[in-house]
Amino acid sequence: MAAKSHEEEHDNKAFGWAARDQSGVLSPFQFSRRVTGEKDVAFKVLFCGICHSDLHMAKNEWGISTYPLVPGHEIVGQVTEVGSKVDKFKVGDKVGVGGLVGSCHSCDSCSNNLENYCPEMILTYSAKYHDGTITYGGYSDIMVADEHFIVRIPENLPLDAAAPLLCAGITVYSPLRFFDLDKPGMHVGVVGLGGLGHVAVKFAKAMGVKVTVISTSPSKKQEALDHLGADSFLVSRDQDGMQAAVGTMDGIIDTVSATHPISPLIGLLKTRGKLVLVGAPEKPLELPVFPLLMGGKVVGGSGGGGLKETQEMIDFAARNNITADIEVISMDYVNTAMERLLKGDVRYRFVIDIGNTLKI
Amino acid sequence: MAAKSHEEEHDNKAFGWAARDQSGVLSPFQFSRRVTGEKDVAFKVLFCGICHSDLHMAKNEWGISTYPLVPGHEIVGQVTEVGSKVDKFKVGDKVGVGGLVGSCHSCDSCSNNLENYCPEMILTYSAKYHDGTITYGGYSDIMVADEHFIVRIPENLPLDAAAPLLCAGITVYSPLRFFDLDKPGMHVGVVGLGGLGHVAVKFAKAMGVKVTVISTSPSKKQEALDHLGADSFLVSRDQDGMQAAVGTMDGIIDTVSATHPISPLIGLLKTRGKLVLVGAPEKPLELPVFPLLMGGKVVGGSGGGGLKETQEMIDFAARNNITADIEVISMDYVNTAMERLLKGDVRYRFVIDIGNTLKI
Repeated sequence: MAAKSHEEEHDNKAFGWAARDQSGVLSPFQFSRRVTGEKDVAFKVLFCGICHSDLHMAKNEWGISTYPLVPGHEIVGQVTEVGSKVDKFKVGDKVGVGGLVGSCHSCDSCSNNLENYCPEMILTYSAKYHDGTITYGGYSDIMVADEHFIVRIPENLPLDAAAPLLCAGITVYSPLRFFDLDKPGMHVGVVGLGGLGHVAVKFAKAMGVKVTVISTSPSKKQEALDHLGADSFLVSRDQDGMQAAVGTMDGIIDTVSATHPISPLIGLLKTRGKLVLVGAPEKPLELPVFPLLMGGKVVGGSGGGGLKETQEMIDFAARNNITADIEVISMDYVNTAMERLLKGDVRYRFVIDIGNTLKI
Repeated sequence: MAAKSHEEEHDNKAFGWAARDQSGVLSPFQFSRRVTGEKDVAFKVLFCGICHSDLHMAKNEWGISTYPLVPGHEIVGQVTEVGSKVDKFKVGDKVGVGGLVGSCHSCDSCSNNLENYCPEMILTYSAKYHDGTITYGGYSDIMVADEHFIVRIPENLPLDAAAPLLCAGITVYSPLRFFDLDKPGMHVGVVGLGGLGHVAVKFAKAMGVKVTVISTSPSKKQEALDHLGADSFLVSRDQDGMQAAVGTMDGIIDTVSATHPISPLIGLLKTRGKLVLVGAPEKPLELPVFPLLMGGKVVGGSGGGGLKETQEMIDFAARNNITADIEVISMDYVNTAMERLLKGDVRYRFVIDIGNTLKI
């Protein structure tokens, strides 16, 4: 039996934009989603953020892409249908989906509400779902997902600016909590002031932490201090400034995904300080061991967050009026946006207005 | 005014063996120690362990050596005199000194009983003491140290086999405690079965932890399982064995100081597992970032321990009858012992019988 085409794989017609090959160029794409199952929530997509990983995946830069590929894992919208056994959501609710739509629910990670570390976790797009079909992301008109992977968006959060919290937000919130960098009076560095970094500054400030932004670009100083509320700003190439800050930080959230030296960052840490990497350089970094030993320091990694913590993060954001700084674009601007993203030309996150601009 | 010679710097004549240059060859050396101050404890040295760092320092391989250099920071003996303000020790007590003899007592690290991470900590030998004189280690007949840096050796511990606990012991005990790898039922890997590794196995087992020894030498299997009580043994080059152990360990204590790949070790960790380096390779290691992110894992360093914890470690060792496996040697065998140490030809620690074999 020949495999069904994307259009008829399921009975629920969907429409979005997809990359077809490694050029990464996105274009309109008709496909299908599964009919709302008994534990599923279906929603009309209203906004979807553009994460830098969408760009990597559209171009198959990590070697795990399946084409056609509909990107998008910062998805928000309004519920249109719920399955018979769904008890947390109802039609009309404002909801979101982040990086995951499935996991095994039985491993140690799942048991500890860390579905993001489940060995069988299913990414929101370009991954194989339980039923064997390929997952498609939020650059599309409708979404269907198991209620376990649906997050409620509190009423006071604007949907467009809340969308990036579902990936960028949880990616920086989770390590601040897990690595105990969330105590008032602590001093935390944030390396890189992009989509992740600018939200990290906001979360850390809301936790009562003193924040120093560390950047290669002196031009971002004003923005970091005046607009985002950081307490100080360090230019990573300014050796005097870096030297003066040696041994002053309880932790650092490093959002940079380009290969970069971490030895100077380790130097900024206090005894038993923690450097947490949330960006993923393709090549291994150089890890100097002596400085780790001499200060009892750690270099850790953190990848997203579990669903329980993602809901906690969104609720924390709502209580503290934290959203991403965004540039809302129309669907047909997406390829231009991707080019600008590659050059770092966005302050700080593109969000696609799916509800108003995605036309079949 | 000319600097005083080593012999007359202080009024307290001492005798030991010192390296004179980068050859690292040790030979008899007359010098002096300070007169017992009001907070000082003086003791007759009975045994001193040979730590691998003694070899590095004797040859100035870390570039911080001052000659003449009297090595030794696993020192035990019996108190001969105490200062007027010493209240914790009296003449006749069995005591020890480890890697440190001084610190600032006012920084954050000192305030948290982590003198080992004090930026002004004073090493037991080849370092400048508060009074400007150079410190000399335990390959010598007498020792004088501030009581804060003196550890009490419980009665039931044999002094010779207890000596290595003062460096090797605390070096592996501290990370087991700090990184929460000390809970019964946990699974911890120990990489390298030398002076540090064999004590790590004993401590972890006494804590109720399941221990897997990871080694390049299949020949150590019998010893690890039957003699040291490890639960299992992995040969790091055995790809099938390593694959079968992927994702099974809560943490790993890596005692190897040669440059080595840590990526396979990171693979052995469970979600949020911890790889702790206690050996110090001279060159940076390659740190793969994706595996850290995908499992929320950390690579940490640990260097010795504070005095409070060192006493705790010795008391824990006494309660659990833990000592190092040693080969006791005479003072004039020390250069041969160093050569054997360089080849890894010792099971597992040389201890010099200072009390009986050091003759002027």
